[in-house]
Amino acid sequence: MGGSVFGKNITVSTWGESHGAALGAVVDGVPAGIELCEEDIQKLLDRRKPGTSSVTTPRKEDDKVKILSGVFEGKTTGTPISMMVENTSQKSGDYSEIASYYRPGHADYGFDSKYGFRDYRGGGRSSGRETIGRVCAGAICKKLLSQMGIEVFAYTRAIGDIEMDPSKFDKEQILKSVTAMPDKDADEKAVEFINECRSKGDSVGGVIECVIRKMPAGVGEPVFDKFDASLAKAVMSIGAIKAVEIGDGCLVSKMLGSENNDEFGMDGQNVIKKTNHSGGILGGITDGSDIVLRAYVKPTPSISSKQQTVNKSGEEIEISIGGRHDPVVVPRAVVVVESMCAITALDLLMSNMHSKADSIINFYRNVTL
Amino acid sequence: MGGSVFGKNITVSTWGESHGAALGAVVDGVPAGIELCEEDIQKLLDRRKPGTSSVTTPRKEDDKVKILSGVFEGKTTGTPISMMVENTSQKSGDYSEIASYYRPGHADYGFDSKYGFRDYRGGGRSSGRETIGRVCAGAICKKLLSQMGIEVFAYTRAIGDIEMDPSKFDKEQILKSVTAMPDKDADEKAVEFINECRSKGDSVGGVIECVIRKMPAGVGEPVFDKFDASLAKAVMSIGAIKAVEIGDGCLVSKMLGSENNDEFGMDGQNVIKKTNHSGGILGGITDGSDIVLRAYVKPTPSISSKQQTVNKSGEEIEISIGGRHDPVVVPRAVVVVESMCAITALDLLMSNMHSKADSIINFYRNVTL
Amino acid sequence: MGGSVFGKNITVSTWGESHGAALGAVVDGVPAGIELCEEDIQKLLDRRKPGTSSVTTPRKEDDKVKILSGVFEGKTTGTPISMMVENTSQKSGDYSEIASYYRPGHADYGFDSKYGFRDYRGGGRSSGRETIGRVCAGAICKKLLSQMGIEVFAYTRAIGDIEMDPSKFDKEQILKSVTAMPDKDADEKAVEFINECRSKGDSVGGVIECVIRKMPAGVGEPVFDKFDASLAKAVMSIGAIKAVEIGDGCLVSKMLGSENNDEFGMDGQNVIKKTNHSGGILGGITDGSDIVLRAYVKPTPSISSKQQTVNKSGEEIEISIGGRHDPVVVPRAVVVVESMCAITALDLLMSNMHSKADSIINFYRNVTL
Amino acid sequence: MGGSVFGKNITVSTWGESHGAALGAVVDGVPAGIELCEEDIQKLLDRRKPGTSSVTTPRKEDDKVKILSGVFEGKTTGTPISMMVENTSQKSGDYSEIASYYRPGHADYGFDSKYGFRDYRGGGRSSGRETIGRVCAGAICKKLLSQMGIEVFAYTRAIGDIEMDPSKFDKEQILKSVTAMPDKDADEKAVEFINECRSKGDSVGGVIECVIRKMPAGVGEPVFDKFDASLAKAVMSIGAIKAVEIGDGCLVSKMLGSENNDEFGMDGQNVIKKTNHSGGILGGITDGSDIVLRAYVKPTPSISSKQQTVNKSGEEIEISIGGRHDPVVVPRAVVVVESMCAITALDLLMSNMHSKADSIINFYRNVTL
Repeated sequence: MGGSVFGKNITVSTWGESHGAALGAVVDGVPAGIELCEEDIQKLLDRRKPGTSSVTTPRKEDDKVKILSGVFEGKTTGTPISMMVENTSQKSGDYSEIASYYRPGHADYGFDSKYGFRDYRGGGRSSGRETIGRVCAGAICKKLLSQMGIEVFAYTRAIGDIEMDPSKFDKEQILKSVTAMPDKDADEKAVEFINECRSKGDSVGGVIECVIRKMPAGVGEPVFDKFDASLAKAVMSIGAIKAVEIGDGCLVSKMLGSENNDEFGMDGQNVIKKTNHSGGILGGITDGSDIVLRAYVKPTPSISSKQQTVNKSGEEIEISIGGRHDPVVVPRAVVVVESMCAITALDLLMSNMHSKADSIINFYRNVTL
Repeated sequence: MGGSVFGKNITVSTWGESHGAALGAVVDGVPAGIELCEEDIQKLLDRRKPGTSSVTTPRKEDDKVKILSGVFEGKTTGTPISMMVENTSQKSGDYSEIASYYRPGHADYGFDSKYGFRDYRGGGRSSGRETIGRVCAGAICKKLLSQMGIEVFAYTRAIGDIEMDPSKFDKEQILKSVTAMPDKDADEKAVEFINECRSKGDSVGGVIECVIRKMPAGVGEPVFDKFDASLAKAVMSIGAIKAVEIGDGCLVSKMLGSENNDEFGMDGQNVIKKTNHSGGILGGITDGSDIVLRAYVKPTPSISSKQQTVNKSGEEIEISIGGRHDPVVVPRAVVVVESMCAITALDLLMSNMHSKADSIINFYRNVTL
Repeated sequence: MGGSVFGKNITVSTWGESHGAALGAVVDGVPAGIELCEEDIQKLLDRRKPGTSSVTTPRKEDDKVKILSGVFEGKTTGTPISMMVENTSQKSGDYSEIASYYRPGHADYGFDSKYGFRDYRGGGRSSGRETIGRVCAGAICKKLLSQMGIEVFAYTRAIGDIEMDPSKFDKEQILKSVTAMPDKDADEKAVEFINECRSKGDSVGGVIECVIRKMPAGVGEPVFDKFDASLAKAVMSIGAIKAVEIGDGCLVSKMLGSENNDEFGMDGQNVIKKTNHSGGILGGITDGSDIVLRAYVKPTPSISSKQQTVNKSGEEIEISIGGRHDPVVVPRAVVVVESMCAITALDLLMSNMHSKADSIINFYRNVTL
Repeated sequence: MGGSVFGKNITVSTWGESHGAALGAVVDGVPAGIELCEEDIQKLLDRRKPGTSSVTTPRKEDDKVKILSGVFEGKTTGTPISMMVENTSQKSGDYSEIASYYRPGHADYGFDSKYGFRDYRGGGRSSGRETIGRVCAGAICKKLLSQMGIEVFAYTRAIGDIEMDPSKFDKEQILKSVTAMPDKDADEKAVEFINECRSKGDSVGGVIECVIRKMPAGVGEPVFDKFDASLAKAVMSIGAIKAVEIGDGCLVSKMLGSENNDEFGMDGQNVIKKTNHSGGILGGITDGSDIVLRAYVKPTPSISSKQQTVNKSGEEIEISIGGRHDPVVVPRAVVVVESMCAITALDLLMSNMHSKADSIINFYRNVTL
């Protein structure tokens, strides 16, 4: 299928360019009977809105979502849900010069190589605005997951060198922080650091962590559609992310087996793991512990300091990118990571419903009675 | 589709359990006209064979591949290629006890939760032997890629704390080293370290790096089937891998935009990047530089030192895993990473053939003339 | 993937209910560089518009399409093309009673069984208006096919017992006829027949034939994604179609091998078939002759004469369906069949580009030079 | 995905050529816990065996199946099931001449156009032996369906002009008849007719009917993966089938709405249809009645009477095809149609398990308790 379609049971088709008429997503395979209104989606969309703080672009993006199909009398009908956000504040005039050259760190050269030309206004399809469709889909999946008692939440773990202190973890703080950090002190330091870099015409990166709580054990489809493999694709497909870790991640390469193995124990009638180095996934299948994933985000490539590059005529030139750019995309990308993890989790929960013959037999026994 | 099917244009269906009759793969979508014989595949399979050194399991696994279909008069016919490796040296007797409990660090508990029971002999489907099918498929893809001038090669970058020295990189050394390290000194140190850990009943992890050379720019399908996202899934689906990085990977989170951006320049008529922090991928599309990926491998979970766990009756017990296990899987996993990257690269090269209307029009103009 | 997503290389996600805010489609995988404007799509959409003749519903449906993404400076960009038609003349009031019972010949009961409830206004998702998205996608595919010299056209072959006379075939007549028949006399008779049935509160069915001209030989992917199998799914998925034939279709069951086989011959340097019983497809692969497909359309289930049915309370009741309904859907479905065939043809033409290793090698040789 | 992979939840990858080493299938996504042995599959395979009667080829094909993976201690494990049938009695010598020309009615020319060359021995991949893999997969699906109380059975409805008499329908007769007709008299007449045609060096076609009983209402995924559309693809992908009908099929085009609509009524607490013109499917969703499908099979293209064709050098020649060929493939194809319908039914039953949010919530509520 085309590269802008994601998922197997839940199928998300996103569309739209930064400066086109609108952006959106069609989400197919959503089960019927979920109470859903535009406000449910708007709440998540607002978390990726710019212009709300000193560390994001001052561009104003209203980003009001409309549900165009798939919801009737306040509930999902089981048919495709089409959602749209109109582009109201994009100014194409800002981007005319960019058309002629390849911005370092951007996909401009790749797009031209692939397609022969590109919509150069605001990055076109490779703009961060593309993620609006992902968040629309994620909001729906999160709603159903929460009804199943499953919670998906992400936050900023680090901005540059400034890392949150796990001992100060305060979940409430995620939505209050400018940087989406769950640690007030770290947030303040990070804001200072970001502003400092911006004042020098530079940008910074960071780390996003996502946790999925109360996932039942047994979810994930070996050997290719494993839970971790599916998450890795989902998250790595977000622009600017260059690494994905599950559980102890990169650290496992330096651990001994005796350190990395999580021992099993009993908690009443339930099997539990005493530690969670695995990040909730063993052999690609959930093990009942929290799923823990980290995504490493590169610094915004659009910077105002001078850079060398080439133009379409093959000349080497020097540029300085103007316009209103985020000095860091991490805080706005948090909800995108959360969305992609939610879609993936729900999709694999659906696949797992037919892992056992008895489940199918029992399901239809009830249906036909 | 089922979780054991991988790829869109090239479709790999792997099958087989550690102690079943055989293992193998069916590879569909392979173009016609590639010269292919069993030896082409055997060469790669031999690189994952155990028993060849002091740091792998002393188990003997002959792993001779047979091609059962899809090749005629020495060439691929365009129809599915079925390959099979018979299990000749597996002894089911070794594993009887394991059936009753959940080994820490293994997928046993997940499999039982998902399917209700499992083939417990040698890990069944979650055994590393599952990767035989991946390597069979990878060998075919590598053959065609090499005819296109594209080279895919992987090697061990680190074993525990012992990292190769990039300044001593010697590609020839990869196949000669016990650990698949392209650095003779590091290899020797790593062997020593592995043997030390094994003697204590423990195991170690490491890092595998894979490079794809001469990939044309423009390959990868935004926004979900991006080149990096597809690689991430392909590689994270390999057992024991807990993190995947592209280019500078995790480090980008601490870099400034001015450090991380790769400037473009001209090399004669060709656009080049002066550095390669991006690892050859920008915005999910290849940028003409080497693709660079790193995979972080956890220490083998089967260790002989004592561990706490639970059995299927819900009792907490202490175990010590006997049998012949690899103290490290990194050296044997190198060719598996290489294979998954090769399959992914070829698949996306195929998708990219219809990115431009002119390409399609020209293709069929020639056909019908 | 969800059931409202179609295609492998070209991926069409349709959405929308009869009486929702809008309907549309997202078409992903469209190659870059096709000149495309709204008028290109509107032309096809207008062919399925009702209210244009005495034999269709007098409902007014303006059905003006908007392109929301994927086109820049008049050309497709290779990114998803989102198209939308707003519902402007739907009146929900008409349908309130229908909510309570199951209309014979409709999907009402199936939808309630599947989803627990349904958007009952105008059939909701099972309305014929759903096909708007298909036609939007078909228009794009037809445009590229025509640039390749491939023509896809459909017409009404029969209405009830009234069949066109092949010897009077006049292609120009298709767009002029009220019934889309390429035979003026048959068209007149058919209109008379339809009006007669309508006056009795009844409805009629018919046959649609679709021809694809100048398809190169060799297209189609055995053994499951064969050209004929793919067309069968594409066309059978259109509401009201109950049978699909290729070439001589049902008649082959009564033919002898010596009658049904098409002999090959030479036309200059080209291999040709002397007859076309096969309908242009042998063994699931195109054979260079015209593709010929017929679809059998049932009479409109919404009729005003009295019918027995049951309501949601399990009571047997008698109903008479009011409202403005087409006495026959065949003329309006012609362009839908044409669209589905065009999408399928283009999709399989793309897959076929990587059937030979040499094609891939040559393609990238040119790219990298 | 490659063209030899079928299904979404159940994924069937078939492989093998007529005269290669073996043929088979890998079936992924089969739920765990189904009791399965080779005899279960062999029973169905034997129904497509030749050499058992006067109307099939005298070629001996033992076709003994081996299960190579996915079954442990007599039960499916949820992992891929690999099945293989070795080619033991194929003689390549018979086919050497055929390599040079294109047989009328066969895929030879298409294969050469597509792939540049072909395995010409016995038709290679386009041989009817390809269906062995389909039957292996169908046998597994039928086993689970039968445990759900769902029965899938097919039979020969007509051979040439000789049609079964529905009033004499005797299900037991299907396996006893030479032609798989459920009507002893018709069977005898058909055998006579076939032998007569064969003696003249000719071949005949026929009609296969398949019925699925006790399908629950609500199954099928609009608007593209509808139950009928999915069946159409499944069945049309079988070689030699040129038309597929659901319910009244082609006849609907000549019916009035008042004739074609099936009225609903109550049978105790259950909604029923009083007639079944729909063939058990309305709007692409099962309606609780029997699914009824008919497939039209062309006469065997391999005939010994003289035919004109061309060779690879572009010369027009006259041929007469020798060797041992079936004068009719209908009786052997019955179990193939049955298999494809069973796979499709199970696949869509799985998809339907997540149509309602409540189903998912309830499923996991039980799991986590």
